[in-house]
Amino acid sequence: MATRTRAARLDPSERRAQLIELGLRMLSSESPDRVPVDEIAEAAGISRGLLFHYFPTKRDFYVAVAREAARHLLEVTEPDPELHHMDRLHASLAAYVDYVADNEALYIALVRGAAGSDKELQAISEETRAESARRVVEALGLVDVDPGVRTAVRGWVGFIEETTLDWLRNRDLDRDRLLAVQEQVLVHALEAAVGSALV
Amino acid sequence: MATRTRAARLDPSERRAQLIELGLRMLSSESPDRVPVDEIAEAAGISRGLLFHYFPTKRDFYVAVAREAARHLLEVTEPDPELHHMDRLHASLAAYVDYVADNEALYIALVRGAAGSDKELQAISEETRAESARRVVEALGLVDVDPGVRTAVRGWVGFIEETTLDWLRNRDLDRDRLLAVQEQVLVHALEAAVGSALV
Repeated sequence: MATRTRAARLDPSERRAQLIELGLRMLSSESPDRVPVDEIAEAAGISRGLLFHYFPTKRDFYVAVAREAARHLLEVTEPDPELHHMDRLHASLAAYVDYVADNEALYIALVRGAAGSDKELQAISEETRAESARRVVEALGLVDVDPGVRTAVRGWVGFIEETTLDWLRNRDLDRDRLLAVQEQVLVHALEAAVGSALV
Repeated sequence: MATRTRAARLDPSERRAQLIELGLRMLSSESPDRVPVDEIAEAAGISRGLLFHYFPTKRDFYVAVAREAARHLLEVTEPDPELHHMDRLHASLAAYVDYVADNEALYIALVRGAAGSDKELQAISEETRAESARRVVEALGLVDVDPGVRTAVRGWVGFIEETTLDWLRNRDLDRDRLLAVQEQVLVHALEAAVGSALV
């Protein structure tokens, strides 16, 4: 019995991590107001009061979960240095789309949901977009990126977000077709950006 | 004197329209919390109290202004039926980019700013995106749009939003280069979508 009690007693950073992990699994709404605190506390085997000790408001909890979701998304899509340019891009995109399919509510929250008037959530979305753009530039071995190419890559990140949201909403498009369009549009967008500089 | 007083007395719908018009000119923040109600009431020559009679909260006012901004954006980018496909697209895109350059804060608010946890603002953004996508399909004379094409057009709307935001943020890219990239990416995205159906 004593062992069992000790096993459930987590230090503060472990408890925080456990609650965020439960949040990642249990959040199914795009609104911080609708965090199911009671269910999460119950699943963690703690009181609602203790949850609020770690996260003073639902929004604080939501921000922590969104930050972790963004970290996960960037982690699973980390470019594989063993692969060459387009293969590397393909692997990252496939991981992105698969992560999103498994974490639909969190993804919508990250891209659209709560990213609006909340400056902190907005910053998480923006940093994720900026890092995605930076990785594309790096993965493709682009150097001395001019403004047209930078803008095109940022635009492509928007293309990825909107096509992925549309795919989630309708579920009538083959995953591989989605990936093929996403990849080709990047190549074309870069060609258009480079070409436009030569006019 | 009597005439002057009467001239300033607007009927409720005129007063509402006047306040929204002032909001369109004076809003320079992406947050409903920062609507400058005092300045707007002063510019309209009415009391703060009367403004709140028309719009009970700052958010109500902000939503009304955002709705009007979305309406303006769709109005100035209305496709010209006299023009043929790509010319029509070019004219609408140019009008879009010019409108955005003149209404930066409102555009950011519409695309990103307050569109998050506020369901009504989110709906305004979504409807504007959906209508933009519908117009592209119509302007290009596309019929029997399959899921891949629909997704590509939605993605392109995201591409337009992100490239336009990047252009506003950095102001280091020629407007015509931006437009050229935006146009070419649509053509390529449609080709990629159609091509992916044949694989």
